[in-house]
Amino acid sequence: MMSVIPVSKHSSNKVFLNTLKGNNSDAIPLWLMRQAGRYLPEYREIRKNAGSFLNLCYTPEFATEVTLQPIRRFGFDAAILFSDILVVPDALGCKVSFTEGEGPRLETITDESALSHLSLDNFLKHLSPVFQTVQNLAQELPKQTALIGFAGSPWTVATYMVEGKTSKQFEKIRHLSYASPDFFHKLIRLLVDATSLYLKEQIKHGAEVVQLFDSWSGVLPEIPFKQWVIEPTKHIVANIKAAYPDVPIIGFPKGAGINLLKYINETGVDAVGIDYTLPLEWVRDSVQTHLPVQGNLDPVLLAADKTAMKQQVEKILATFGNKPFIFNLGHGILPHTPIEHVELLVETVRNWKR
Amino acid sequence: MMSVIPVSKHSSNKVFLNTLKGNNSDAIPLWLMRQAGRYLPEYREIRKNAGSFLNLCYTPEFATEVTLQPIRRFGFDAAILFSDILVVPDALGCKVSFTEGEGPRLETITDESALSHLSLDNFLKHLSPVFQTVQNLAQELPKQTALIGFAGSPWTVATYMVEGKTSKQFEKIRHLSYASPDFFHKLIRLLVDATSLYLKEQIKHGAEVVQLFDSWSGVLPEIPFKQWVIEPTKHIVANIKAAYPDVPIIGFPKGAGINLLKYINETGVDAVGIDYTLPLEWVRDSVQTHLPVQGNLDPVLLAADKTAMKQQVEKILATFGNKPFIFNLGHGILPHTPIEHVELLVETVRNWKR
Repeated sequence: MMSVIPVSKHSSNKVFLNTLKGNNSDAIPLWLMRQAGRYLPEYREIRKNAGSFLNLCYTPEFATEVTLQPIRRFGFDAAILFSDILVVPDALGCKVSFTEGEGPRLETITDESALSHLSLDNFLKHLSPVFQTVQNLAQELPKQTALIGFAGSPWTVATYMVEGKTSKQFEKIRHLSYASPDFFHKLIRLLVDATSLYLKEQIKHGAEVVQLFDSWSGVLPEIPFKQWVIEPTKHIVANIKAAYPDVPIIGFPKGAGINLLKYINETGVDAVGIDYTLPLEWVRDSVQTHLPVQGNLDPVLLAADKTAMKQQVEKILATFGNKPFIFNLGHGILPHTPIEHVELLVETVRNWKR
Repeated sequence: MMSVIPVSKHSSNKVFLNTLKGNNSDAIPLWLMRQAGRYLPEYREIRKNAGSFLNLCYTPEFATEVTLQPIRRFGFDAAILFSDILVVPDALGCKVSFTEGEGPRLETITDESALSHLSLDNFLKHLSPVFQTVQNLAQELPKQTALIGFAGSPWTVATYMVEGKTSKQFEKIRHLSYASPDFFHKLIRLLVDATSLYLKEQIKHGAEVVQLFDSWSGVLPEIPFKQWVIEPTKHIVANIKAAYPDVPIIGFPKGAGINLLKYINETGVDAVGIDYTLPLEWVRDSVQTHLPVQGNLDPVLLAADKTAMKQQVEKILATFGNKPFIFNLGHGILPHTPIEHVELLVETVRNWKR
């Protein structure tokens, strides 16, 4: 059982928050996307007993416990709420299920009639177990550990709602967005409203930072990228800032490539996640000059080769370490990652001196 | 039956070749990736009678006919040999099959033992029907139409050989390339040799230009991009240039993003294909300043919306038209594309004046 430590919010003692505010700390803050996950034996144990994956997300005792596991084991500087980006469509009334090894399956929303069955009426109530988890975490986390809330971005969440599952080429949603822009705009607008409400409620319950995951932003040309990634993100950021001006927002438009430059200039995010394909020096010279960056070790390298991984960690630290920087992966940690590789990663980041 | 017109090779009357040599012509040359394909009723007719997909590729009468179909219908400035990038592993002895609606399936090559069964011994003989097709086309094409040969790049072909099929995240091959770099280097080296031989033989039989398709280059971080995309491409370009210094080579590293800049500086390709995600002005100012570019209409937009498509075609022409530029899509044309949309695309490009 964890001891209950009261959290002083926005404490400048938290190196993660300090860095997000654009300050250099003595140490580089560190956390890993999907750090509460299947690579941890203690996670697999809970997962086994939790029933369905959604049940794990919706049961505060389980979700709190798995969020805390990687903090206990590795002492990361931030904990991220354990949940899934698809609880948002689920709470809107779009049926979601997860089948082992198959990924998510959703009722598809591709016309006005299907859209008309979705609603915000029961939205926050449906998600109340998630807010309970956030509240538990705010109480149970060590005082130096920041608490991150999150949501999927409207475009990425919409890919699942339109395609019905994880896609390869995203042709169905791209076709729909070109052929029925009015309908698609309504769907995105609903997701902007829902996501804004969801994140504000997480902050109200104790999240100190929020991250927007736009995992599939990289499949869009520049005009749709502006319409379906930048504009919705900008609205969500504005909605959150209107209520909570001091809560930092991290955007993670995976695969955005060159379109990342417009994203950081136009959305209003406070920091940006860097995926593993982006060249380090380009990011340092074109992105980190504008705001703190977070990234970008290839999770496949972390799983595959300790020696080359350590070298790359050191290269990343040497490139970004002199300005506000948060060490992370460039995508979520993989289930088959050996624990000892993560231990070496943590040790390497902790031993690094500016 | 087509009339047989003798081809004068490297004729400067061919606007496509002229543009690839860095000259402006009165008109913008035009062809579409996968222009011989399922969106054409005359293609579907041949496909029905050809047996398996590989049989279509390996029967010169069929392959010649489907290559010519879009030239007759639309008068494109270049014909591209009808074949598939997976004939290379097939000819090396790695079993390939295509199942309707499932995509390709390959025997996987993930260790030295599997690799040792592959060989160049029977390689060119196995591919002789392809060279016969090239020879037929060189004789049958209209005199103003250029003939493009092609191959997949080693990295992209290797993804199929290691994953056994089209992948989503390419985690298996990325893991293998990190964990067993010596083995992986041998596989890539074999593909460099095979691809060089294959393209030189296509040129010998009448191909006037060759294009290297690196469809999955975008999943690589910068160091592996250098190792597995830039270096192999550089070797293939050098091998071809040693034998045929005047034959232009187009590289198409789809999804390369910012890594495209190193690709154009280091590989030696004469022109570069631009995928649909790249912002137009960035390409104009950072890429077209170095070499002719080819692209980049989103094939989903072509299929989805005539009006928005025409606007985007005009925007692409206005952005790139004042320097050497080849109009194309940013990826292959989709099977459900309406013919009348292609007709409007052709008309718009043909009516454009510099």
